[in-house]
Amino acid sequence: MIKKWYGDTFKLGVLGGGQLGRMMIQSAMNFDVHVYAMDRSKSAPCGTLAYDFTEGNIQSYDDVIAFGKDKDVLTVEIEHINVEALEQLEKEGVKVFPQPRVLKLIQDKGLQKEFYKKNNIPTAPFHLIDQKENLSNYENELPFIQKMRKGGYDGKGVTSLNTTADFTSKAFDTPSLIEEKVDFEKELSVLVARNEHGEVQTFPVVECEFSEKLNLVEFLFSPANIDPSIEEKATVLAVDVIEKLDMVGLLAVELFLTKDGELLVNEVAPRTHNSGHHTIECNYTSQFEQHLRAILGLPLGDTSIITPGVMINLLGDEKFEGPAVYQGMEDVISRKGVYVHLYGKPTTKPNRKMGHITITNDEIDQAKSVAREVQNSIKVVSN
Amino acid sequence: MIKKWYGDTFKLGVLGGGQLGRMMIQSAMNFDVHVYAMDRSKSAPCGTLAYDFTEGNIQSYDDVIAFGKDKDVLTVEIEHINVEALEQLEKEGVKVFPQPRVLKLIQDKGLQKEFYKKNNIPTAPFHLIDQKENLSNYENELPFIQKMRKGGYDGKGVTSLNTTADFTSKAFDTPSLIEEKVDFEKELSVLVARNEHGEVQTFPVVECEFSEKLNLVEFLFSPANIDPSIEEKATVLAVDVIEKLDMVGLLAVELFLTKDGELLVNEVAPRTHNSGHHTIECNYTSQFEQHLRAILGLPLGDTSIITPGVMINLLGDEKFEGPAVYQGMEDVISRKGVYVHLYGKPTTKPNRKMGHITITNDEIDQAKSVAREVQNSIKVVSN
Repeated sequence: MIKKWYGDTFKLGVLGGGQLGRMMIQSAMNFDVHVYAMDRSKSAPCGTLAYDFTEGNIQSYDDVIAFGKDKDVLTVEIEHINVEALEQLEKEGVKVFPQPRVLKLIQDKGLQKEFYKKNNIPTAPFHLIDQKENLSNYENELPFIQKMRKGGYDGKGVTSLNTTADFTSKAFDTPSLIEEKVDFEKELSVLVARNEHGEVQTFPVVECEFSEKLNLVEFLFSPANIDPSIEEKATVLAVDVIEKLDMVGLLAVELFLTKDGELLVNEVAPRTHNSGHHTIECNYTSQFEQHLRAILGLPLGDTSIITPGVMINLLGDEKFEGPAVYQGMEDVISRKGVYVHLYGKPTTKPNRKMGHITITNDEIDQAKSVAREVQNSIKVVSN
Repeated sequence: MIKKWYGDTFKLGVLGGGQLGRMMIQSAMNFDVHVYAMDRSKSAPCGTLAYDFTEGNIQSYDDVIAFGKDKDVLTVEIEHINVEALEQLEKEGVKVFPQPRVLKLIQDKGLQKEFYKKNNIPTAPFHLIDQKENLSNYENELPFIQKMRKGGYDGKGVTSLNTTADFTSKAFDTPSLIEEKVDFEKELSVLVARNEHGEVQTFPVVECEFSEKLNLVEFLFSPANIDPSIEEKATVLAVDVIEKLDMVGLLAVELFLTKDGELLVNEVAPRTHNSGHHTIECNYTSQFEQHLRAILGLPLGDTSIITPGVMINLLGDEKFEGPAVYQGMEDVISRKGVYVHLYGKPTTKPNRKMGHITITNDEIDQAKSVAREVQNSIKVVSN
């Protein structure tokens, strides 16, 4: 009898019901993989689309145990999960990918940095501190970045400390790491997947486009505009990280390319990632399918590029909160090679990730210019 | 206030819960269109994936009324629907696309043929008969095809009559049409979409590959291997049909290219179609998204080809019936540019459509050869 990883007799559980889970479900449909999801409210992006949806708290030991115990494989779409419950489930024979020990390491940015150091993975110099008052020990290393060891997310829990005055006004009083500010040339990202059989596959390197004028990351694009030797080095580095983590699943490795041409690991995410959304249209295999393949023990898919592309996040406008209205959508979807992905969140909030848009074009510069036009024509508001 | 066609405040109803509805839901997720579906059993391909699923009979007047009355737009994924109910709902202000009068016409192959004749749309010569005994009036036109006017589906309700002996042994005793056997060179298909604003868009012509050795349609491929003048003529013909039908939605126009280089309309389907599955990977806009755009009054998407491709149906093996097992799947999904779409049907039956596979390749001949290998390595069986 063939072992089935699809249909009625196989249950894949996903902790978290957000957009990453939603796009995973969209992909899982092709393989008839039944995805069960858990998150606080059924109004989450996966709510009505999961094979079955459980309302529960992914940070609660009891909720995670109750949800996970009858699943064949458990995965996550966010790393802030009750790891103790996952460890228990793993002991009871549930396959948990990424493995709980990897999640534990990555949940704590201090442990993560120590892991890099111990394993000769290049990363910015750092110190760990227990509380705010320890900052004064490192006055002579100013300016630097302070990151909370736990609980940071989407830019939260990170602050830039430039003077000792900032120690009082801006610093976090919690176990943290302080890190040298990297004078980087570019921010890059490499997605890498690994299955139980040890097969490893990377996606081509993605680059962040930073707008000096707007002082923010404008979009991500693929392929990155880097020297082939850097591409090669980044790829080798990503493979090195996932192998040293001995992890199964998809891992996003965020890198700094320094002005000296060095690559430093900034941080990693053991799941599908914002920097891989373009793979839905731009690569033979999407990050969502690749993650599924990895955790189900299937052969990994080909990751080569079908077309260059640019991805922009569709964020809630700063001035609106309430039921979401996508102003300018019809104009945007009239354009060739422009793919809108809404996440199905009923309400918009300032800067909330409401969706993303991928722009494909044989010429990456053309894609960038369309991306800027699209960015200007669409707006997430509320009535 | 912007009229919303997404989110909580808009309900799209789909009559039928099969694979066409399933792939429509997969596409609708991108635009956050909430798809409600109705079919007999929740084990249908749309069962757990629809925003909400109603168990009901699409041929029952009462069930269709009950399901449709609170929807903003109603559509179908199969044409064998209770049209009287749709007409009533339309009167009550529900938008029904394709329109009930179009469904009525297409449900009856006799009316369909008369429509072509009346509107100067080229089609094979035919006669309508009420019962079996009328066949003898057309003895001197043998051989010909007999098609039941109503209820035929997937090759059922069609028979080939070659001698008067066949009148007794093979003919249907029901209102039918008899049609001259067309000595065709190729079978082609054109998908065409039209929205409420009268915008019309065709997809590039698709060709059926018939295997003389196997005596069956082996696969469909795009672009068709035809002269540009035939491509142009087929496209104009498809536009002509949808405009004369004054239809909103997606229409599949199946054509014969005769040995004399003439195009004849074989039949049409007012919905997404088997001959358009490759558009998911091969075209800028898929047939499923195009149908949604058409019925929601959105601008139609660009239909140009991203890559040539071949589509094969994944049929239940003739010797098995029971819980589906996809033998050889892992081998198939190891190949670059091979996309498996399973329909999530729990049980396989001989020749049941269980899924499809699209093979993309810059070289169509290469795609065809991979398609043949794939066809030989995958098998839908049961334990």
